[in-house]
Amino acid sequence: MFRKMLQGLVLCLALSTGIALAQGPDPLPSWNEGPAKARILAFVQAVTAAGTKDFIAEPDRIAVFDNDGTLWSEQPAYFQLLFAIDRVKALAPAHPEWKTQQPFKAALEGDLKALAATGEKGLLTLVMATHAGMTPEAFRKIVRDWLATARHPKFHRPYNELVFQPMLELLKYLRANGFTTFIVSGGGVEFMRAWVEETYGIPPQQVVGSTIKTKYEVRDGVPRIVRLPQVNFIDDGPGKPVGINQFIGRRPVAAFGNSDGDFQMLEWVTAGDGPRLGLIVHHDDAEREFAYDRKSAIGKLARGLDEGPRRGWTIVSMKADWKQVYPR
Amino acid sequence: MFRKMLQGLVLCLALSTGIALAQGPDPLPSWNEGPAKARILAFVQAVTAAGTKDFIAEPDRIAVFDNDGTLWSEQPAYFQLLFAIDRVKALAPAHPEWKTQQPFKAALEGDLKALAATGEKGLLTLVMATHAGMTPEAFRKIVRDWLATARHPKFHRPYNELVFQPMLELLKYLRANGFTTFIVSGGGVEFMRAWVEETYGIPPQQVVGSTIKTKYEVRDGVPRIVRLPQVNFIDDGPGKPVGINQFIGRRPVAAFGNSDGDFQMLEWVTAGDGPRLGLIVHHDDAEREFAYDRKSAIGKLARGLDEGPRRGWTIVSMKADWKQVYPR
Repeated sequence: MFRKMLQGLVLCLALSTGIALAQGPDPLPSWNEGPAKARILAFVQAVTAAGTKDFIAEPDRIAVFDNDGTLWSEQPAYFQLLFAIDRVKALAPAHPEWKTQQPFKAALEGDLKALAATGEKGLLTLVMATHAGMTPEAFRKIVRDWLATARHPKFHRPYNELVFQPMLELLKYLRANGFTTFIVSGGGVEFMRAWVEETYGIPPQQVVGSTIKTKYEVRDGVPRIVRLPQVNFIDDGPGKPVGINQFIGRRPVAAFGNSDGDFQMLEWVTAGDGPRLGLIVHHDDAEREFAYDRKSAIGKLARGLDEGPRRGWTIVSMKADWKQVYPR
Repeated sequence: MFRKMLQGLVLCLALSTGIALAQGPDPLPSWNEGPAKARILAFVQAVTAAGTKDFIAEPDRIAVFDNDGTLWSEQPAYFQLLFAIDRVKALAPAHPEWKTQQPFKAALEGDLKALAATGEKGLLTLVMATHAGMTPEAFRKIVRDWLATARHPKFHRPYNELVFQPMLELLKYLRANGFTTFIVSGGGVEFMRAWVEETYGIPPQQVVGSTIKTKYEVRDGVPRIVRLPQVNFIDDGPGKPVGINQFIGRRPVAAFGNSDGDFQMLEWVTAGDGPRLGLIVHHDDAEREFAYDRKSAIGKLARGLDEGPRRGWTIVSMKADWKQVYPR
């Protein structure tokens, strides 16, 4: 009798342990239970179920993530622009003419409105004056040094701490399930490569972004690559599918964005055959982060809200779907 | 006594098995014993020995391989050019004007000399007429269909069988030791992506090459990427370090080439700090493959032969160092 009971207990333990092992701990603890989390879990379970019609082989499990506004915040201005402004301030002593010259004057005065008024040409001028003329290694060091000291105006934290905890969990969850995760961002490739490997676990060769031209030269017997003040590629809007094809060479099966600059990426990814996941982060949490969409100059989201749902894309409400926004 | 003997036997077996396991089977069976093979083995052993000064962490174990002449043959002309010529022949019925127009006339007549006389401009015209106007997927299918039927004029084998067995072993050996292997070739990215994953085990996102421009468009509700007849990037000579930086974003620690078009790639890779491996395949085997170097229009190798040895690069003699050239 005692033996039977023991057997029963062992069986019971084995079963419950088995179930616990099969379910495992929640891979997305910062996501509230709801349709967004359910959609992600169902997608991953479907494409990893060997022998089913939805199964996707590991090499084809490519997931692409926008960065600004999708993996980290982008308000009150793209963090790379805030970096450029800080660089202008740091370099200003050697450029007295900047005091009266736009877009530098606006940057030196920290006047984002006046800076925006200089238009795309003004922003490009600012980027070229601060992002070119050195090797990629030297540039990455400048970015890392900036991250070590600069603080966000609202949250007073280093910018690379203003990454979204739920998205960090999502990146890990996908990789644990055989996905290769890529960044596909309008931001500069080298600006991102400086820190994304440590922060997101994404190595340099999996970062697709906007680029300036570079050249190879041998100076005093030392070969080096130099960044030139000329645009090479803008990885935004219809440029995103183009960049994906150029760098990845495979149509991804999952795409994550937050603005209409990600529209074509989501469109291209989710129009492919078989199971696809398209997800848009909707910034609707003024308290914990920022609330903006249709009328925002940065990260404008209108077409995605209008067309996303009927295209089968999941709109994530930061307010409702995220238990936590930033890592603690 | 018997017990002592048995213990001795067990110890002996354990030791010999241990040694056999440590050495394992020869990872490079198609390489003859000699300085080239010894150099490769010593490099890999050094950089994978944890706790030593030469140790390189896995993410930094990046190895870059030229393709034409390094991983597969390139005579009597780059195989991609032979493909373009076959495409001109296939498309000729719809282009009666090609019969009298260069470079098409030369291509239709299979006259490589006349074709070469049309210069770079002629070759580009040929490439644009045969490589653009379709999606990357459609183009890759055209390449695969060609590989299935076309035969090399000397060896009468499919072109993708004319890959070098010793280099296939080297690719595998490096990957088994934690290296990530990339192609960095002057050849077209999509031409390579069509077959290199199956043949070399190198996925599309690890192929760096020359590219034409592409655009994203939605036609009848179906999004697609279209190849345009405009050069985007030439991945040759000083373009190779530029391409490596753009796509990989890390300085590789090992580089493999065969012509002076690979010089800057080897220069950049081997000038880095720490242990580096630079290797040049010298085509000196007229019997089993082809013999050419300083005076060849294709795969010219002069500077590499002159400067390579004192830069610490290993010159591989196909004739002396390779037991076997192609897979059987």
